[in-house]
Amino acid sequence: MANLLKRALVGRPIDTADAGHTLLPKAIALPVFASDPLSSVAYATQEILLTLGLGGLALMWLTPYLAAAVALLLIIVTISYRQTVRAYPNGGGAYVVAGTNLGQTAGLTAASALLIDYVLTVAVSVSAGVDAITSAASGLVDHKVVIALGFVAFVTLLNLRGVKESGTLFAIPTYLFIAGIYIMLAVALFRLGRGDVMRAETASMVLPKTAKTLGLAALLLGLRAFSSGCTALTGVEAISNGVPAFRKPKIENANKTLAAMATIGVTMFVGITALAINYKVRVTEEFIRQGGKTALAQIAATTFNSDRTFMFFFIQATTAGILILAANTAYNGFPALASILAKDNYMPRQLASRGDRLVFSNGVVLLALFAGALIYAFQANVTHLVQLYIVGVFVSFTLSQAGMVQHWRKVLRDDPTADRSKVMRSMTINIVGSSTTALVLVIVLYSKFIRGAWIPVCGGIVLFFVMKAIHRHYERVARQIRLDHPRQVLPARNHAVVLVSSLSVPTMRALNYARSINPHTLQAISIAVDPEAARALEEAWERNGIDIPLVRVASPYRDLTKPLVEFVKNIRRQGANDVVTVVLPEFVVTRWWEQLLHGQSAFLIKLALLRTPGVVLTNVPWHLSDEDEGGDGASGESSDEPPLTAMAAEPGDGQ
Amino acid sequence: MANLLKRALVGRPIDTADAGHTLLPKAIALPVFASDPLSSVAYATQEILLTLGLGGLALMWLTPYLAAAVALLLIIVTISYRQTVRAYPNGGGAYVVAGTNLGQTAGLTAASALLIDYVLTVAVSVSAGVDAITSAASGLVDHKVVIALGFVAFVTLLNLRGVKESGTLFAIPTYLFIAGIYIMLAVALFRLGRGDVMRAETASMVLPKTAKTLGLAALLLGLRAFSSGCTALTGVEAISNGVPAFRKPKIENANKTLAAMATIGVTMFVGITALAINYKVRVTEEFIRQGGKTALAQIAATTFNSDRTFMFFFIQATTAGILILAANTAYNGFPALASILAKDNYMPRQLASRGDRLVFSNGVVLLALFAGALIYAFQANVTHLVQLYIVGVFVSFTLSQAGMVQHWRKVLRDDPTADRSKVMRSMTINIVGSSTTALVLVIVLYSKFIRGAWIPVCGGIVLFFVMKAIHRHYERVARQIRLDHPRQVLPARNHAVVLVSSLSVPTMRALNYARSINPHTLQAISIAVDPEAARALEEAWERNGIDIPLVRVASPYRDLTKPLVEFVKNIRRQGANDVVTVVLPEFVVTRWWEQLLHGQSAFLIKLALLRTPGVVLTNVPWHLSDEDEGGDGASGESSDEPPLTAMAAEPGDGQ
Repeated sequence: MANLLKRALVGRPIDTADAGHTLLPKAIALPVFASDPLSSVAYATQEILLTLGLGGLALMWLTPYLAAAVALLLIIVTISYRQTVRAYPNGGGAYVVAGTNLGQTAGLTAASALLIDYVLTVAVSVSAGVDAITSAASGLVDHKVVIALGFVAFVTLLNLRGVKESGTLFAIPTYLFIAGIYIMLAVALFRLGRGDVMRAETASMVLPKTAKTLGLAALLLGLRAFSSGCTALTGVEAISNGVPAFRKPKIENANKTLAAMATIGVTMFVGITALAINYKVRVTEEFIRQGGKTALAQIAATTFNSDRTFMFFFIQATTAGILILAANTAYNGFPALASILAKDNYMPRQLASRGDRLVFSNGVVLLALFAGALIYAFQANVTHLVQLYIVGVFVSFTLSQAGMVQHWRKVLRDDPTADRSKVMRSMTINIVGSSTTALVLVIVLYSKFIRGAWIPVCGGIVLFFVMKAIHRHYERVARQIRLDHPRQVLPARNHAVVLVSSLSVPTMRALNYARSINPHTLQAISIAVDPEAARALEEAWERNGIDIPLVRVASPYRDLTKPLVEFVKNIRRQGANDVVTVVLPEFVVTRWWEQLLHGQSAFLIKLALLRTPGVVLTNVPWHLSDEDEGGDGASGESSDEPPLTAMAAEPGDGQ
Repeated sequence: MANLLKRALVGRPIDTADAGHTLLPKAIALPVFASDPLSSVAYATQEILLTLGLGGLALMWLTPYLAAAVALLLIIVTISYRQTVRAYPNGGGAYVVAGTNLGQTAGLTAASALLIDYVLTVAVSVSAGVDAITSAASGLVDHKVVIALGFVAFVTLLNLRGVKESGTLFAIPTYLFIAGIYIMLAVALFRLGRGDVMRAETASMVLPKTAKTLGLAALLLGLRAFSSGCTALTGVEAISNGVPAFRKPKIENANKTLAAMATIGVTMFVGITALAINYKVRVTEEFIRQGGKTALAQIAATTFNSDRTFMFFFIQATTAGILILAANTAYNGFPALASILAKDNYMPRQLASRGDRLVFSNGVVLLALFAGALIYAFQANVTHLVQLYIVGVFVSFTLSQAGMVQHWRKVLRDDPTADRSKVMRSMTINIVGSSTTALVLVIVLYSKFIRGAWIPVCGGIVLFFVMKAIHRHYERVARQIRLDHPRQVLPARNHAVVLVSSLSVPTMRALNYARSINPHTLQAISIAVDPEAARALEEAWERNGIDIPLVRVASPYRDLTKPLVEFVKNIRRQGANDVVTVVLPEFVVTRWWEQLLHGQSAFLIKLALLRTPGVVLTNVPWHLSDEDEGGDGASGESSDEPPLTAMAAEPGDGQ
């Protein structure tokens, strides 16, 4: 039944051999990998305005300069990443690039930072998407968290179905969003050219001044606003991670997609910010929390004259669409990175295996759980979540670009055939890229640390050490199980012990099986929880002439496990190299509730025996048959059950 | 660690041989078995007043007549049960008596009714106990539910520690309560004799008239009040159930205790009701809910002149004490009855086994869970809970006494040595008892059904059919596993299959073990989830010259379980009587979190194989050692691990 539900939700299993078919054409790759940086224009401008607004109107003049700085940064990072795509066509994630060139510590640092930022990407994008919806339908403002969690569940499901199908689906809202923004910019440009004076509904809003705006305080506020604006850069690395998912020629296609993303992103961001300045858009955290319009929604309402026009709703709907689907970038990145880490023994193995729809299902589910928890903890508040965001992105940007610098140095040193001037050019680009992102990282840390950035920093450090511990564990295992000289030998002596509670069909099956494996010694053991029952068993044993010795073990405290383990340990004292095979008659019922009627002692016994050295555990199951044919000669043994008791191929005479 | 906590809470395990030591002297048996009927005087009077009060003052004159009827009923039932004690010295619960004499359907009906009423006893007594506390400390009125649940947890813990220790502890508040009530009655009698006119604080309370008080309506209200007063009778049967727990001579001691209980109960109930009438005590549900004093608390405050006197607090404290401990009657009755039902295959077997403190721990926990749920659902409201109460008690009273009538008829018919006149007397008593309780049952059902009694009625019916289903299951099992002619034979052919994923120490151990059990055929099977890994394994196999055939099974959908089960089923097609032993190399780690790093696929495989007919499951565990000695010659094999690989006792050459 659970299986049917799973099939209905995620679809039929996909053959491993079909893996190649899910490669992406450029037009699909752009929305799949770039919806994150494209969608962040929906909140990056607003977060700049909101942060500057903490100082009243005094620092609003900084807005265009900050926007220009963010746009420039986006261009620098994009060009820097083009070098990575070229150098690492098999996927140049920060973990690989930094790890290969700067050592494993740098690689792991980048990986922890990225994993945490993927989670934040989902949380921030989905929350901002819900803000877009409540801008158009403010009645929903009290249900933000539930709506956001619903969207996380929806995106998770899409991703469990597989990357290609989700790609096709995601293309539509992304392209509609881009079209909508461009139409809005064109209309605004036309109206401004005509001489219209347009003002946002909040143009005359009084901004309560809560921060100082003189000297160092002003600088700090400016830096904070810049840091918040840098959210526009998250996800730029997704394309360089995802090169193998592109159709051939992979490098060219990936770089063209990267260029398209940067061009579209910068024009939209600059355009929206310019309109926000022109329209005198004002925004505060409180205003948004109470269901007020986002900056982008205000711009749309102003441009199209009213918040009742078709175009206003179109912009809001596509914004919500692209934002919620932007989370998809993380759904591609997180499971892929986790699987690489798992293959390198830094993450649990389960993250490396593809589910039956060829996606890394465990990683997808893990990401959804963490993102859902964050959304719940921060009540889908974008401004608060943004404080935690982008620290990780800039850690990985810096390490990745610094790794590229090292990469080119190695090429110069080791590869005499390389085109030196081309390599020198790439190296220069990466030097500029890494130093710029390092500077931004310092700014982000400095301006945001006490406002929330400490959370991902601490989380990253913990994750780093957890990965180290996992790696040590797997290394230890690998060392211990390595087989230098396989020896095909028989164990010294095998002592079989059959656990018996009554003389019944299942018991007889177990006894006969134990006899068939030719043990060195064979005993039946009865744990005397109830002395009377034990005596009855001994009588039945004698009466039926069972020739296997029956040993009664006392259990004054009515516990099955401890006496059994002690008994087994005692046998092993006879010879350190001996093996004890414990044979457990197992009872398999047909209906789930029947299991409740048979106790869990078998489970506890198995657990304890598995932890006892030198024990081999053998379950001889006996299946309760559903159609009850009464007590015929075969003792009701079910037809598809091999009759260990009834069959008579050369009756053996014991050991 | 969990074990340490358990020891601290419930104490050290007790030897089965010590069971006899927990027999109870009369002075302890009275509080253990009779605290329920004794304590119900704390609310029985109040519930009569409260129900009559629904008709304003019009029907208040009925109070003494109803109280007299309840007292008479208590005496009749007690005398009736004395016959049961004499006839069934091994414990004459309604289930046994009704089942033996009237057939299993009657027995099971009585049992379901009693089980449900035990749960209600806990819920009602604890809730009433909390009311006694809030009567003295009305500030706690908002925390009733939490306090009640806390007391349930406390009583549960005491009972998990064992019956004798809880008996000693319970004696003190019970005797203090009795002493307190008698002192109060004496003081009141003295003051009334002196001519004092005493009035309860609520004597002039206006009772809103919400029910009609003419004709049939008046009769119905009177019957409802009588039904509520009958709560005084719950738990009378506990002594006849518990005869085996008495010290010798058991019958005499049990009957003396029964008589003492009835005498004390009737005098206290009649005395309290008389004072309530004299003091003009008024009470409504709303009054109690808002933290007003219970009827008993008002009587105490009036008798001792103020609710600030020592004696007032003494009465409240001991009332709370005996009520909360009255729940203990159910903690003795429920697990004992459940264990008898389990032994008769009407309840899950787990309820029949004594825990390591010699009590039926599973029954104790089950009772606590159900009672806690009821208290939570009804928010510890005594008046609401009382509507559900006593239906079950009177079902079992009636069936039990009717069974006794049948019992005496059989004695007259079958036993010529019996003293006919004595038997006739006993039979007459039981005829009166059963017809009286049958009449009361009809009254209770008629007056309370729509007010809540339908809940235990429906619950009882469901429980009845669940017990029938459980019985059918166990019967089916017993029929199928019954061994008529044990045949000691070897299975036809045993095919061993070793599941292999890499050539490592654990794998080699499993292969060598499989070889040692002399199977008819032996194959290693590799499930090719990752074709490359499968190829690498095959190469290692060849390179090391392993002479066991390695079979690669395709798994296009990356699933381990299904291909393995299919493979095993295919082998069994060779011969219907063949057995397939699946050998699983098992990996046992030392730290709990390490388990997370190794996936749960082994668990799922075991589950699927256990459900496949003809499969025997063998786990060959390999223990990861904690102290890592590096890759020495023994391949890091831990010292207490029998070296199946390293040991060389006459190297065998395979099959």
